[in-house]
Amino acid sequence: MQELRRDLAAATRMLVDAGIVGYSGHLSARAGRDRLLIQPVDDVRAQLRPDRLLVVTLEGDVVDGDGQPPSEFSIHTEIYRARPDVEAVAHFHHDPTTVFTLVDGSPVVPVKNHASRWAAGVPVHPDPSHIATAEQGRALAATLGDGYAALLRAHGEVVVAEDVRTLFADVVHFVENALVLASALALGPVTPLSAAECARFNATFHRARHARKLWRYYTTVAAAAGRLPAGWWESADPKADIQQKS
Amino acid sequence: MQELRRDLAAATRMLVDAGIVGYSGHLSARAGRDRLLIQPVDDVRAQLRPDRLLVVTLEGDVVDGDGQPPSEFSIHTEIYRARPDVEAVAHFHHDPTTVFTLVDGSPVVPVKNHASRWAAGVPVHPDPSHIATAEQGRALAATLGDGYAALLRAHGEVVVAEDVRTLFADVVHFVENALVLASALALGPVTPLSAAECARFNATFHRARHARKLWRYYTTVAAAAGRLPAGWWESADPKADIQQKS
Amino acid sequence: MQELRRDLAAATRMLVDAGIVGYSGHLSARAGRDRLLIQPVDDVRAQLRPDRLLVVTLEGDVVDGDGQPPSEFSIHTEIYRARPDVEAVAHFHHDPTTVFTLVDGSPVVPVKNHASRWAAGVPVHPDPSHIATAEQGRALAATLGDGYAALLRAHGEVVVAEDVRTLFADVVHFVENALVLASALALGPVTPLSAAECARFNATFHRARHARKLWRYYTTVAAAAGRLPAGWWESADPKADIQQKS
Amino acid sequence: MQELRRDLAAATRMLVDAGIVGYSGHLSARAGRDRLLIQPVDDVRAQLRPDRLLVVTLEGDVVDGDGQPPSEFSIHTEIYRARPDVEAVAHFHHDPTTVFTLVDGSPVVPVKNHASRWAAGVPVHPDPSHIATAEQGRALAATLGDGYAALLRAHGEVVVAEDVRTLFADVVHFVENALVLASALALGPVTPLSAAECARFNATFHRARHARKLWRYYTTVAAAAGRLPAGWWESADPKADIQQKS
Repeated sequence: MQELRRDLAAATRMLVDAGIVGYSGHLSARAGRDRLLIQPVDDVRAQLRPDRLLVVTLEGDVVDGDGQPPSEFSIHTEIYRARPDVEAVAHFHHDPTTVFTLVDGSPVVPVKNHASRWAAGVPVHPDPSHIATAEQGRALAATLGDGYAALLRAHGEVVVAEDVRTLFADVVHFVENALVLASALALGPVTPLSAAECARFNATFHRARHARKLWRYYTTVAAAAGRLPAGWWESADPKADIQQKS
Repeated sequence: MQELRRDLAAATRMLVDAGIVGYSGHLSARAGRDRLLIQPVDDVRAQLRPDRLLVVTLEGDVVDGDGQPPSEFSIHTEIYRARPDVEAVAHFHHDPTTVFTLVDGSPVVPVKNHASRWAAGVPVHPDPSHIATAEQGRALAATLGDGYAALLRAHGEVVVAEDVRTLFADVVHFVENALVLASALALGPVTPLSAAECARFNATFHRARHARKLWRYYTTVAAAAGRLPAGWWESADPKADIQQKS
Repeated sequence: MQELRRDLAAATRMLVDAGIVGYSGHLSARAGRDRLLIQPVDDVRAQLRPDRLLVVTLEGDVVDGDGQPPSEFSIHTEIYRARPDVEAVAHFHHDPTTVFTLVDGSPVVPVKNHASRWAAGVPVHPDPSHIATAEQGRALAATLGDGYAALLRAHGEVVVAEDVRTLFADVVHFVENALVLASALALGPVTPLSAAECARFNATFHRARHARKLWRYYTTVAAAAGRLPAGWWESADPKADIQQKS
Repeated sequence: MQELRRDLAAATRMLVDAGIVGYSGHLSARAGRDRLLIQPVDDVRAQLRPDRLLVVTLEGDVVDGDGQPPSEFSIHTEIYRARPDVEAVAHFHHDPTTVFTLVDGSPVVPVKNHASRWAAGVPVHPDPSHIATAEQGRALAATLGDGYAALLRAHGEVVVAEDVRTLFADVVHFVENALVLASALALGPVTPLSAAECARFNATFHRARHARKLWRYYTTVAAAAGRLPAGWWESADPKADIQQKS
């Protein structure tokens, strides 16, 4: 579980660097049956440490670690309950993406080939409240359905994936797609990627390899900038790294 | 009063880092009966020091410290006169927020849940002049009324709060809301948060706790970047900090 | 003339930091009768050194220094010829400002109170060519007329002032005004500052004092970031600086 | 070939700094008959090293170096096959430029004088798929035709030039032009540079000298920021550099 803790802390710090997480937002990972790993409510995301992460039950009780989970932990627990296929959840507040919750008839549609992940659409949860109860969490999980992302009106985003590193790549692509879409709509009527175009892209897309490539890029750049402590990963030598991860 | 001085200097520096204060703009705090703490007119906001702050009367006379208050000190003094509930005032010139003063029929409305603070509206002061006299300050205070923020045409913003740390959080949210609103309006007609939605958010919102969270995030990040001197606060250890502040 | 050289080099470096000057753009200052101070064509703006500046005649001949002036030196020489009141000229290529040259019926108008400087309007020079000859320089000077700024179609900007430090402040305000205007126009029809509003602002505006304030802010921040060498100015102590410059 | 390797690695790193290349994108250079120099698929662009570059045949076989070329190498090989005049190719994913592929009737047109390079137009390749086969590469080369840039729908850009340093300058200008165009279109109908205006600009434009100026600016700034290792070029002294390169 040390690797999972390190991945979750690193992903959080790198999303701070990318301007996607800030004074708030949190990532979690499933950690065995009916358990998840999540940060304490007030720990500074820019300096999150693996050993600070809490092990929490699906009821939000802390079974290991020091501190309380974020007040919106039900976002995570209720999605894990509803979606056995999900191993990692990100909740964040990226304003330029959240704008799509404020305008009727302007949904998030795929306009970058990597956004083919969300070809089936991105639902908007209509309640702008904080997700403070299990009931609210269940309502959000219902909005998400069997999709991979949802927007929360005037609030933020949820993205889910099969592991932390792939989640990181998905979050980057999700906000990039929203930014492109907003810029394109300023030019005129947009022709989004069709279902056929998305399917064709997905047919040859190697999701795990792509996630590994992004992970490598962002961890290397973050380590060089002193944003990830030396020693979290053994080596920054390109060849060593290729041998180790391929 | 040392803590108040430190908070005011730190808040100013952190608003510089956030791109909200720059070569101009100033924050103040009420400092006892008929007194306020404010920076000297020309001190560089990015390096403001607690011991440089002036104690000034409501007439603008310096009773402690070396230098002259900002020429627009009447913004602060007249708001403190008119609003006994206000303990801290920020005046700044955030251009992407000020644009809302230039277009008829495009008021600042809440589109982020944290902007529920300004559910009652944000008035626009119609006079673009510098606030150089007590009379002008009184006119601005009248525009503000019993609200928590006002815009000044082609000039800038005023935000008021119950203490410096909460004021800092409010200023961050205020400009974030304006940026989101401008981006959303580019997509189409915007449905802002209704009075009911704002009320529901405010009902469960723990304002002091939220302000503490933002303060902790921003001071930690600023200290790590060398933007706040070591020693302004005792410890950056997360656990120590939690024990100290909770 | 050492102070003038230092001011010109510092202003150039700080406009690089502000994203206004980059791989091109140049500032000049009148240096005695029929002479100007200007940088060599290829010297890197981000590292410009006072001792590298050239003394050039109004014909563009180098009378002191090592190198050739920028190929567009006629912008500077012909404005100095035509405008005895001008002591400093900036030519730069700030794309978000230059967009106003591409759209008919969308002139740069004052929407920030500090843009009252350009209340009489900002003409657009219709020729997008490089200003490679004295004749082209004279045509541009004719477009500028007795104004304080002009735009060059699909090319860039010229701003003129009474000294280098004030020119620096003017350039900052000029591009800030253009950015605000573009953002405001995205919201709807804009009501710019009227002639009366500009006149009222200018009536109480202390131009020299304001330029000094900006100069102090930007030089302090640039020195702290290592962008201006230590020793260009004697002291960064706020009080010493106040005594020295007031 | 050491200089070519260094130029290609430096150009890649500097395009990362400029926000144009990131976790993906790649540059190549023709390296003798039927050979090209290109980076390994997963090497981190921000830290690309000259000695890591691969020598690859037009079939994508590695004849020198350790690793595999990018999966989209056919973009490069098929353009070199079709265009004997091209010595350097850049493929990147600059979102604010790619938006022009999403909106019918909004082509990239020249609105900066340096964009006269693309006066004949910028075609859009209609297939958003990754270029994973030689056949797809040939289709893209056909879209490019005898032009100097092409857009790929919902994907990215290709820019070609006569050498790596000039390619670097072209890429900078290409994305700057797209950004200006998007901003201008937000203001109203845009009058792009006419064929005559472009021809007049090109008639007096010294392309090699201009590329040298940009190269010098960006390498100097990148070296000062520690983004290019000391020793890649002999001297940063302005005068030495002028003598060396003129």
